[in-house]
This record gives sequence, C-alpha cells and structure tokens, in this order.
Amino acid sequence: MTTYTPAFPELDPPPRLLCGPGPTNPDPRVLAAMRRAMLGHLDPAMHGILLEILEMLRQVWRAPEDALVLALSSTGTSAMEAGIVNLLAPGETMIVAQCGFFGARIAEIARRHGVDVVEVAADPGEAVPNARLLEAVDEHPEASMLAVVHAETSTGVEHPLRQLGTELGGRDVLLMADCVTSLGGVELDFEAFGIDYAYSCTQKCMGAPPGMAPVALSARAQERIARRTHAVPFSLDFELLRQYWVERPSRYHHTAPILHIYALHEALRQVQIEGLDARWRRHTAAGSYLQQGIRALGLELLAEPWHQLAPLTAVCVPDGVDRASVQRQLLDEFGIEVGGGLGPGAPNIWRLGLMGPNATERTADTLLGAFDTALNRAAATVVV
Amino acid sequence: MTTYTPAFPELDPPPRLLCGPGPTNPDPRVLAAMRRAMLGHLDPAMHGILLEILEMLRQVWRAPEDALVLALSSTGTSAMEAGIVNLLAPGETMIVAQCGFFGARIAEIARRHGVDVVEVAADPGEAVPNARLLEAVDEHPEASMLAVVHAETSTGVEHPLRQLGTELGGRDVLLMADCVTSLGGVELDFEAFGIDYAYSCTQKCMGAPPGMAPVALSARAQERIARRTHAVPFSLDFELLRQYWVERPSRYHHTAPILHIYALHEALRQVQIEGLDARWRRHTAAGSYLQQGIRALGLELLAEPWHQLAPLTAVCVPDGVDRASVQRQLLDEFGIEVGGGLGPGAPNIWRLGLMGPNATERTADTLLGAFDTALNRAAATVVV
Repeated sequence: MTTYTPAFPELDPPPRLLCGPGPTNPDPRVLAAMRRAMLGHLDPAMHGILLEILEMLRQVWRAPEDALVLALSSTGTSAMEAGIVNLLAPGETMIVAQCGFFGARIAEIARRHGVDVVEVAADPGEAVPNARLLEAVDEHPEASMLAVVHAETSTGVEHPLRQLGTELGGRDVLLMADCVTSLGGVELDFEAFGIDYAYSCTQKCMGAPPGMAPVALSARAQERIARRTHAVPFSLDFELLRQYWVERPSRYHHTAPILHIYALHEALRQVQIEGLDARWRRHTAAGSYLQQGIRALGLELLAEPWHQLAPLTAVCVPDGVDRASVQRQLLDEFGIEVGGGLGPGAPNIWRLGLMGPNATERTADTLLGAFDTALNRAAATVVV
Repeated sequence: MTTYTPAFPELDPPPRLLCGPGPTNPDPRVLAAMRRAMLGHLDPAMHGILLEILEMLRQVWRAPEDALVLALSSTGTSAMEAGIVNLLAPGETMIVAQCGFFGARIAEIARRHGVDVVEVAADPGEAVPNARLLEAVDEHPEASMLAVVHAETSTGVEHPLRQLGTELGGRDVLLMADCVTSLGGVELDFEAFGIDYAYSCTQKCMGAPPGMAPVALSARAQERIARRTHAVPFSLDFELLRQYWVERPSRYHHTAPILHIYALHEALRQVQIEGLDARWRRHTAAGSYLQQGIRALGLELLAEPWHQLAPLTAVCVPDGVDRASVQRQLLDEFGIEVGGGLGPGAPNIWRLGLMGPNATERTADTLLGAFDTALNRAAATVVV
C-alpha cells in the first residue's frame, strides 16, 4: 500500500492582473457561465448550444456560409498543427512568413510533418513585406499553402493581412493565418481577407480561459481535405471534427470540455452584445493609449509603428535595466503579469497585453503606473 | 458590415444527474477550485501548482519515481493517440485486445499512423483472455507494444490487467493500458501491473470536468522515446511535454488550460484526502449495489460477471422495449442521463455510470428508482 503524504492545501493562487501575452483575465460573465449545471456532451440540450456557438463563430470570423467553423478541444498550438496536417501532405511545399516565434513554430511543425518549407523571413519587429511573399508564391508554383501570423504575439507585429489577401488575387495557393492574438480584438474578416484556414484561441481577445481553439476553413480548404489521401492524426482530423460538431449527436469523436464550451458560448455572446467592430475599436484605443504612455516614459517599442499590433505591445528593455527584475517587481508588488521575450534568441523586451476585458484605458493606466514605478526603481538600482 | 442577429440568451442548461458513461457530475470542491483567481501559465506560482500535481499524479497512478507523469491539455482520445505516435514508428507492430469500441479505436488510430495491427478480439461483454494475448505476443516477436483497455467503457468490462502484467513477465513488449474509466475508481497500480503507458481523463472516476488527460510512462517507454527517429505531431510530443511540465518555467509548449489545472489539482487532492484504496472500495460498493438492483429488476447485464466493471454497468435492453424512449424519459422527467450503445454495430444496451462523486449507493437508489419507473412505462406502452 502506498503511504500518502498529508494532502496538499487547497489552491490559493494570488490575484493577478494579467497584462502579458495571454492568457488575459477572463470576462467575469464568461466565468459565471462556467458555473452552470454540467451537461453530458451528447445531451440533446448540448446540441443546441453547439449550434449557437457555430453561428456565433461564423460571425466573429466573418466567415461565409460555406466555410466550416468549429472549435478544437485543445490549444492554439494544436490548431496550428491541425491546419498543417489536414491541408498539406508530406512532400508538399509551404511558404511561411517568419518574423517571430510563432512563424518559426509553423515552419517547425510543417517540417515535422515532412512538408518542404520555404521561409521568407524578416527581423523581429518587422512584418514580412507582402511583396516578398508574392514573389515567393510566384517563384514556387508548387507551393500548396502560404502561412502568415496575423498577430505575431512574440513581437507585437500585425501582418497586413487584408492587403495580402487582395494581392494574392486568384492564385492557387491556400492562405493560412495564425489569428491567436487577433480574433475578437483586431480587424479580421475571414471572407474579405481571402483566408482559407484561420485558427485562434479563447484566452486572448476573446476573454475566456485557455482551453479551446476556434478555427475556420474555406470551401476551398474543405475540398482539399475531401481529396486528401494522406493519413492525419485522429484527434486533429477536421473531417471527424466536422461530423462531431455539425452532424451530431450521432457522431462520437471525443468528450468535449463542457465548461469550456459554456465559456466559449458566453465569450461569443459578449462579442455579439458589444459588436465586433466596437470590440476592435476598444482594443485599438486601449493599445494606442498604452503605446503612447510607454513612449512618454521614454521607452521604445519593438514593432515598426505602421505594423504595431493593438492588443500586444513589445517594449525594448533599456540598456542597464534588468528585464526580469522589473517583471518580478510588477508581479510581487503590484500583482501584474507582463511577459518577457519568448524562446531562445528572443529580443530583450517586455510584452504587454491588453486583451479581452483588460483592453481598457483604465487597465492601461494601472499598468503604466506600476511599470513606471518598477522601472524607476530598476534604473535607480543600476545607478547605485 | 455584418448584420448581427440579436444576441442569444445566456445559457441555462437543465440540471442533470450524470449517470452515463461520462462525464460525471464534477465534485463541487473541484468546481470551487475553478473559481480561484486565474494565473498565467508561466507564473512562478503556477510552477508550484504543477509540481504538486505531478506528485499527486504519481500517487494516483502508483507510478514509480522513474516514471514520467503529466497531463495532456486535451482529451483522453488525444492521450490514446499520443501513446501510439510517440511509442511506435510506422511499420512497427502492435497487438490490440479488442472487445469493444475503445479497443477498436486504438487499432484504428494505430493503422492511421502506419502501424501493423494484430487484433485479438472477443465479443462485447467479454474480456480478451490473457492466454490469447500471450499467444499473440509469442507468435509476433516483432510486436513492439500490446494494448489493452483496462476499463472498456462501451461494454462495462474490466480487463484482468494485474494478471496480464504478471503473465507477460519479462517479455520485450511495451504494455499500453486505456485507463479512461478506471483511474481513481478501479484498482490500478501502474508499477505493479507492469504498465509502460497508461492514459486517462478527468471527467470520470476523478470527478473533474472533461478537459485534461493524465498519463504515465515507464522508464522503458521513455527510453523508447529517447531512441525514436520518427517524427511525432508537435502537440502530442511527450519529450516536449516533459520539458513543459518538468523543466519549466523556461520551456514554452502551449498555454495550459489554467482552470482545468486547478480542477485537476483539487480532484487529485480529494483522492489524497479520501485515500485511493477507499475510493476504489467506494466505486466497487456503489457499482455492485447498482448491479444487484438492476438484476433485481429482472434485467441482464452485458458483461461477464467475473469481468464486470464497477463504475460502468451495461444493461441489456429487453425485447420489445425501446432503448431511446427510456433514455428520453429519464432525461426529461428525472433529469438523469444514462448512455446507450456506442458506435455503429453496438449491442442494444444502456450504459449506467456511477463515477467520482456519483459513486454512492444513494445515487444508485435514485437511478434505480427512476429507471424502474421509466422501464415499467416503456413495457406498458409495448403491451398496449
């Protein structure tokens, strides 16, 4: 018989204002929805809830009627991988716009899957110019897909995705867009931008906890899947997931995370109530306000101003200031989380996020005040 | 601009007593833990929470110190697939004990991955005899892995896993066990049973909502992974997941579902408080009590009595009774969910589950009373 250690105490996590790259603090109404009575995933009442989610997902993606929308019962990373493995066979070619951690991750996952990757890179803080992507498409007529990160969470860069879609015109290449940090917070129109596969998550501008990944597939992407002959991991198979979401209740695929389904429903409902355009404007206003405040503190932003993302602001750490100690002070003294650079070789930055319910000038003021204090102390320490 | 439909109303799901194959009603203390303040997944405080989870997971699996334990941020199905794709290269051979839906699914996922599958089958309600599995192992010395479903949720059959482990002795074949419906509710000892890879979920005997999948890998399984040369899907890669869980906070892999992390922590804590053996006994007592009551109603059970699982009872639908109408009555009049047969070609059964907080004689009484009433009405309808 195993001897048990005394039970650990109940969790008592400290309150945090989550102003990093995500997760953000969930909308309290989303958390309230998670307290509702739990249904089974095959309950007839669940069917209606899922249909409402599909209708609202279509709206938040601005996806046409012939697009397939659904949400994976996993993370944004899984949704990135799902797009690659469903839409590309090993040996096919994919062009990847790479100017940060998440573009690099797309390339890495594609290579794992045996895809030939053509990387078109730019420095952190820049977006890969659309002209270079179009050149790559024209130079690689064999390429099946072009992938861009709409909102590069590692650098705060917004890719000019509307223009890319327009410039791609009728080219026979699928467009995949990582919208993890844009859905619900940054202007995004799946149909008008000509996107074929887009994926996001719930814990950023959607204002729900992490746990699900909304996706959208164009008619063209679905046709590609229908013609597919290569095997796809079962848990990421969009045809099976389509059956589970759309043809239910007869098709069992997995047990959906019920309370996250409730959370997603309420998060989408809050977008309906606020209005998607108004929500974008709120994120833009809060982000611009924060960025002005940061510059007023004498700090520089990493992203080119014309590609600055609203929900995520990357701030360059001044010479002589210890990045981590500023983060620690913010966390320990003010209960505020901000991020650092992501991954090995990352630029020396802080990453400040104003997403979902935190996308307000009030939150920006709180963050700026604490940031200023922590920074002054860190600078004072350096002088001493 | 999209025209929005008026917002859907807030969710108001009807209360359910979840007595099907899962999810079960979560323990209220687990739900309370999900209401705590949300941390970021890279917060230093999260590190301590994950370490406590790892320690408790090791206890609930009864896994030795050199085993790797962690939880996937996805479903039991993903964990089934993760075991196959991490431990078997395409072209390798796997023996699968198949006597129900989940054994068949293991074989299906393995075939997708290019694995040669040797199925050893038994009829629904039976367990595949260990002697036949040992024969298959001896006939297929090329087989790298043997997979069994410890608790076949589709038929209510418990595989005699302890004996299998003993009888396998020192054979050079990995043992994979689907413990989706057994972890926390059925006697299970990862080390003593000689398991190399086990996976489960949170929404059954663990008494938490669906959303995560605890797993355990033996030292031998980890060595296999270390020697692996084939590519594995990024989101299911145990080496990356090990870095994320064990070597954090420096390794980013995905954004963990924070509130489900809290739920898992509290669910494991409740196992510590109750004691694992006591929890098994509670599930056994409740299941036996229900099974006696079902037989007292003149109904037959699908599973062989000597392989009857405690948390899941498959009841044969009597001739002339409409299975679905009984389920509908239970749901609509009593608010009780029970399951039917799973998948095409399933036996004509109801599946009754007493799992997690519902594994009590009191819940069994509630279920039996409602079931008796619904059944009598259905029978009366048939007579008329």
